Amino acid sequence: MSSDRLTEDFNAGKPAALARVVSIVENHREGFEQILGSLHSRTGRARRIGLTGPPGAGKSTITALLVKNFRDQGLKVGVIAVDPTSPFTGGALLGDRVRMENVALDVGVFIRSMATRGSLGGLAGATREVADVLDAFGFDLLLIETVGVGQSELDVARTADSTVLVLVPESGDSIQTLKAGVMEVADVFVVNKADRPGADRLRNDVELMLGLRKGVSFGNVPAHHGVDLRRNPARAARKAAAEPDPTQWTPPVLSAVATKPEGIPELVAALDRHFAYLQQSGTLRARRRERMRERVMDVVERKVSDRLWKDSRTRAWLEEQLPSVEEGKATPFAVADQLLRQSAELVRGEQRT
Amino acid sequence: MSSDRLTEDFNAGKPAALARVVSIVENHREGFEQILGSLHSRTGRARRIGLTGPPGAGKSTITALLVKNFRDQGLKVGVIAVDPTSPFTGGALLGDRVRMENVALDVGVFIRSMATRGSLGGLAGATREVADVLDAFGFDLLLIETVGVGQSELDVARTADSTVLVLVPESGDSIQTLKAGVMEVADVFVVNKADRPGADRLRNDVELMLGLRKGVSFGNVPAHHGVDLRRNPARAARKAAAEPDPTQWTPPVLSAVATKPEGIPELVAALDRHFAYLQQSGTLRARRRERMRERVMDVVERKVSDRLWKDSRTRAWLEEQLPSVEEGKATPFAVADQLLRQSAELVRGEQRT
Repeated sequence: MSSDRLTEDFNAGKPAALARVVSIVENHREGFEQILGSLHSRTGRARRIGLTGPPGAGKSTITALLVKNFRDQGLKVGVIAVDPTSPFTGGALLGDRVRMENVALDVGVFIRSMATRGSLGGLAGATREVADVLDAFGFDLLLIETVGVGQSELDVARTADSTVLVLVPESGDSIQTLKAGVMEVADVFVVNKADRPGADRLRNDVELMLGLRKGVSFGNVPAHHGVDLRRNPARAARKAAAEPDPTQWTPPVLSAVATKPEGIPELVAALDRHFAYLQQSGTLRARRRERMRERVMDVVERKVSDRLWKDSRTRAWLEEQLPSVEEGKATPFAVADQLLRQSAELVRGEQRT
Repeated sequence: MSSDRLTEDFNAGKPAALARVVSIVENHREGFEQILGSLHSRTGRARRIGLTGPPGAGKSTITALLVKNFRDQGLKVGVIAVDPTSPFTGGALLGDRVRMENVALDVGVFIRSMATRGSLGGLAGATREVADVLDAFGFDLLLIETVGVGQSELDVARTADSTVLVLVPESGDSIQTLKAGVMEVADVFVVNKADRPGADRLRNDVELMLGLRKGVSFGNVPAHHGVDLRRNPARAARKAAAEPDPTQWTPPVLSAVATKPEGIPELVAALDRHFAYLQQSGTLRARRRERMRERVMDVVERKVSDRLWKDSRTRAWLEEQLPSVEEGKATPFAVADQLLRQSAELVRGEQRT
């Protein structure tokens, strides 16, 4: 199929073209930048909701129920699963997938599992690009499911407008198993399996932890690329104390029993409240600006890597240097400096002379 | 303290200088490249062992017992904990730390917790650099503890010569919660808490999964930067079938009850066998070559990022472009291309003209 024909079919809303474009973009196949460039002007409309939490917390069940709820409101919903434990991703061995089938047969729903390794430019970048494709295709709402332990999953969660952290009482120590970062990134907390012992204690623990940042809004603290001001709650607290913000958001701690299901309408309501807050406080605009900034910076860094490491002469030159680096005669820093001094044309995207 | 004096004290084996150098390197403070460059020729001697696994699997207890065992052999041991749930990292709320104290008071042991976020150049890069510092200081053995769910933790695990994956029966479904990548990266499996129900089944599950790659040695398949040939077991299998390798390694699946403790001498023996295999098969050399290659590539990419994003004119120029990117008038790709076209001097490390 020609690229023009593919774009035409995509713009006409054909599901096969969507699946094809997503594959091209996810795997960075030839022409993916042209495709992303051509649909760029139609992005920025979908609301993006991230769900994260430890394995087994019930994120997929909650995702499926959210899909159903939003579908009942007439919204078109895209799901991106970057959770290796999710039945969406094929990571589950135990046939959990079955319960997703009703959802998957609905034409207003598109479900995509992301490979969780080996993406050039990182998982967060690839997820953001697939989200852009779904956004441009016309989905109203995107649900992005990740596992919230690793750094890259945290980065993925941060590509969303609103982030839900799902916890369960059986991992009674689950709060301590989560990085401070994931607590700070969450806009809504859900204690799932709330009918089990320990649920009250877990909710208390979360509220206690949230109390540490009481009166402090983290959502609108701008983050620099790789340097997140949210890491410094003390500074943020001083800032907030000096400049009281009438449009603050206090993350609610909800209960749910997704298998029954219970608690989903409350979660939807909380997400709607959060989205209204994002819009009214200007945080949505700030988050999307930040997302665009990181997007461009990611593209720049990826282009540099591609241009350098796909050049066979550069690779060969690097290979020649490795023995002396191993023997301690040259340092990685000296070799890197020299490599960059001789690679200006490559970085500019020109052929080497 | 002057940089020369610091290097002198470091070379003289003073613990305070070690702690200081580790801090400078971990946080990429001024002069860290000079320091790493100056100690580079003394690296490459320490044996590096990674421990990974889900939260609560008992990795820290096993790490502490391994430290004790290696200390009893007269080896100097460095511990790098990049596990937010580890008592080493301060992530634990419940006073687990106490049990580490005996180990921590030993002068032949150095324990370092890594911040798990915000490191420029990524967690794997920072961990590798801190490991290089400990290596140069003269530690014989480095234990690197990570949580094995996220991509960055996997990357960390891969900086080691040998990687141990610790699993526990209570996460009965723990195999499905692990990415395929972490199974492939493990050289030794330990089923901890093996006196609990489900341990036999878990061991069977792991052996079943390992059976999928029976007769296939993944350890010596070279990985390209970001493109891991180990992801293609079919190709590796064909390769192995065509070229039978007498020095293959079949990952053992051990049992342990770390709290008793039981199973630690067997783990130490398995690690020693693995290290002997690494040396005899040439895999150690190949892994270290690959590590050096990635090291230089990481440094190159980090230098490019630093040079671009620390330049105030480049940041300001990018900021000016964002509105038109948001409005869909420009694409991230076009802006990135233009940025790189005008940044050749920066990338080369020169002042902008």
